[in-house]
This record gives sequence, C-alpha cells and structure tokens, in this order.
Amino acid sequence: MPKLEAYSKHLPYSYCLGLYPCLSLMETRPETVMRLLLSEDAPEGDGVRKLRRLCAESGVREEYASRTLRRESGKENCFAALVFRKYDCALNADKPHVVLNAISDGGNLGTITRSAVGFGYRDVAVIRPCVDVFEPHVLRSSMGAVFRLRICVYDTFDEYLKEFPSREIYPFMLDGAKALDEVSRSAGSVHTLVFGNEAAGLDSAFRSYGQSVIIPQSREIDSLNLSVAASIAMYAFSSAGKCK
Amino acid sequence: MPKLEAYSKHLPYSYCLGLYPCLSLMETRPETVMRLLLSEDAPEGDGVRKLRRLCAESGVREEYASRTLRRESGKENCFAALVFRKYDCALNADKPHVVLNAISDGGNLGTITRSAVGFGYRDVAVIRPCVDVFEPHVLRSSMGAVFRLRICVYDTFDEYLKEFPSREIYPFMLDGAKALDEVSRSAGSVHTLVFGNEAAGLDSAFRSYGQSVIIPQSREIDSLNLSVAASIAMYAFSSAGKCK
Repeated sequence: MPKLEAYSKHLPYSYCLGLYPCLSLMETRPETVMRLLLSEDAPEGDGVRKLRRLCAESGVREEYASRTLRRESGKENCFAALVFRKYDCALNADKPHVVLNAISDGGNLGTITRSAVGFGYRDVAVIRPCVDVFEPHVLRSSMGAVFRLRICVYDTFDEYLKEFPSREIYPFMLDGAKALDEVSRSAGSVHTLVFGNEAAGLDSAFRSYGQSVIIPQSREIDSLNLSVAASIAMYAFSSAGKCK
Repeated sequence: MPKLEAYSKHLPYSYCLGLYPCLSLMETRPETVMRLLLSEDAPEGDGVRKLRRLCAESGVREEYASRTLRRESGKENCFAALVFRKYDCALNADKPHVVLNAISDGGNLGTITRSAVGFGYRDVAVIRPCVDVFEPHVLRSSMGAVFRLRICVYDTFDEYLKEFPSREIYPFMLDGAKALDEVSRSAGSVHTLVFGNEAAGLDSAFRSYGQSVIIPQSREIDSLNLSVAASIAMYAFSSAGKCK
C-alpha cells in the first residue's frame, strides 16, 4: 500500500479517527478498511483490544504510526485510526430521508448524522456545493454514525427528486407555512425532510416542492443552529412514530 | 482606556465579534460596551451604519483596529467587534431554568444559549468546572443570544439548589426514568432542565435530585450531541406550553 498522504477530498481513502468511530466502522463496513493505525502510547484497554481483534479477524494490517496520527488528528490527539476506502451508497426508497442542501460545515453534518441514526433515519442525501462527507472532521463529529447510514451526494435537488419521485417533501424554512408539531403528527412514513445552508437557509423556491415547515421560535434569534433544527425535526417525526 | 490585550478569561472585558452579535449587545446591554472596533475594509451596509449609530448614541468610541480584529477573530475574519465589560447576572426565580453541569465546549454553550432564547428560556446556570461564558467563541456560536439571557456561574449544583429550592428538577440522562414527551406534558412552568458534561453526562447521583428524563434514541449511537439534546428538551417543554 502506498504511503499515506495528508487527507484531502481527492484521495480515494480517508481516516476514521478515534476509538468509538473505529469500532462503528469495523462493525458496519469492515470490507472498506485498509489499515489500523495505532500510536506507540495507545492505552491497553478493552476498546483497543476489541478493535485490534476485529481488525485481525478481517485481515486488516495494524501499524504503529504516531506521526500520521498526529498529522491527521491535530489537537485532538487520537491514538487509534482506521484508513478506509471511500464507498458509494444508494438511498432506500421505502424509508424516510433527510436532504441537506448545500451544507457547508463538517461539524454540523457529523452532528446531524449522529441524530439521524439516533432517531431512525438511515438515508441522507447531500446536495452540492457541500462539505466533503468523508472528511475526518465529519466522521469524528458523527462519532462514527456516518458509517451506520446510507449517504449519497447529488449535484442538484432536482436530481434527488428525479430518483425519488412521489414522496411527501417537507422543506424547513423560517417562514414555513405549518408548525413542526402539526406536520409531524399528520405525516406519512415515506417522507423527506429538507434543510438548507447554515447562512442562507433554503431558497423560497423550495416552498413549491412540498409542505413548508417552521420550528416555532422567538424572533430574538436569527435562527436555530442547523444541526439543532434538523435534530429537532427528526426527533418530532420520530416521536410521532413516523420512522418505523 | 489601556491597550486591548489578547482575550483571556482573566480580563475584565471581552470581545463580541461579528455584526449580528454586536447589534444584539447594543440592543440589550449598551451600558457594558466600551469601544467599537472596525476593520479598515468594513463594508458600508445598513448593519454597519446601524451599529455605528447605536454606538454614537451611547457615547461608545469607535476605532479602526484591523490588527486587533485579526488577532481576536483568527480565520473568521470579522470586520466589526465590540469591547465590553463582563457583567454579573442573577437568575429569575419565577422562570424556567437550564442548568449546564460542567459544560466543556464553548461552541456547545453558545449553541445552547441560542436555542434557549429561541424557545423562551432566559435563565441559564453553568456549574464549574466549565468553559468561560464570556469567551469570544461562545459569544459567536450564540450569535449574540448570550446577551439576551441571564447567565450565572456556580461552583456546585448544590449552590444553585440552595438559591433556588422547591423547583421541579429534570436531570437528563441516558438511563433517565421517563421519556421527554411524557415529562414535558406534565411539567409545571417553574422547572429546571439539567444537562451534564459532553463526555460523561450527569453522575448517577443526579437521579435523586428530581425526575430523571431520557430522550428516546437508538442504542446505535453513543448519545446525542449535548447542544442537540438540550435544544430538543427545550423545544419539547416549549411546545407543551411550559415556557410562558
């Protein structure tokens, strides 16, 4: 295997940093894993032992690579990482979806995938221009949840719709026509929640795609943080029993 | 006024970075503001004009200080900032409270205050050891919402309880005894939501302080992000009409 380069979105592989996310990756997609990297001073606990065992069982070579770990994890100082091959997914048409239109912050994307898995959403579409879904920062913020769902990148929202026509579409907007509680109670289980960019939200054109929704909030804030808004929405639909 | 130093928690003042947070600060606490800093290339839009007018009306001196702005805002590259005196608050005993026990991440604290103001919570207690509530990163993540609420730091949770006895206390825990929906429906309006540290959550001893609550979630995630969990809780109580 060639020398491991500093992560960039152009590489065909990425780095999963941190013990918990690594264990998630080995449990869900071991076939993508190329190498286990450990720091020389990695602690000898149950988690590390389990990770090493899973890797050995899958034929994944382990290597002491403190310098690579330091380079990739920066201040976070991880002692374990997996190098894995980037993979493609196809969303499941029979399940509820989340669409993130032009999401720009990797921490937000990671946090949203963590909530998604928490509330039963396993299908996430990301529309360009957007953050790189395999960026180590996204994977770390997700605490490995990204590996537990199907994530698919599209060039436009129309491209997504063409693949998944005839769904209940719920664009979330600050001037949405109906409140979240009302919508979540009456929604079906094959639905799509749509969220916009951190700064700009969704363009008003999105109202025509389905039932626009608002999370009622005080006018004294500019808006809710994007990952908070998406998580509240998924919580509401999930509590209303729409994510079976 | 002496030379402006690089921010540290020991300073009696802090820096509010960015136009929107600065406007929030001038609207809510102009008496704390000491100076307006602008970069030489600040745009000439309505927001900047409004900020300069509010400052002039309050006798706040403006100054071109690109170097100070670059130093304090780093990559974020803000063109406007306010230097303000740190202040003390007292929580309102007749209102619902949020308690953050040992919160360690400034971005989470800022995001929680933004949701708090959004959902009608104006009283936040932070228990040490904790992040510095006036850190510029907290203020920026809050989009200035911190200024719109009363925030008070305590050395221990018992110190908070001594000041505010006889309240309905709701500690949020992964093994909470009742689900959020049920609890939010039956709660009173003079209640306290309690959240723990990002890594460790709340110690099991907190169960004895009140009615422990769980946000139902899949076992496939470690937990929800702290600011997401707190925001979902505030949303639920607010939708149930408990934050009047």
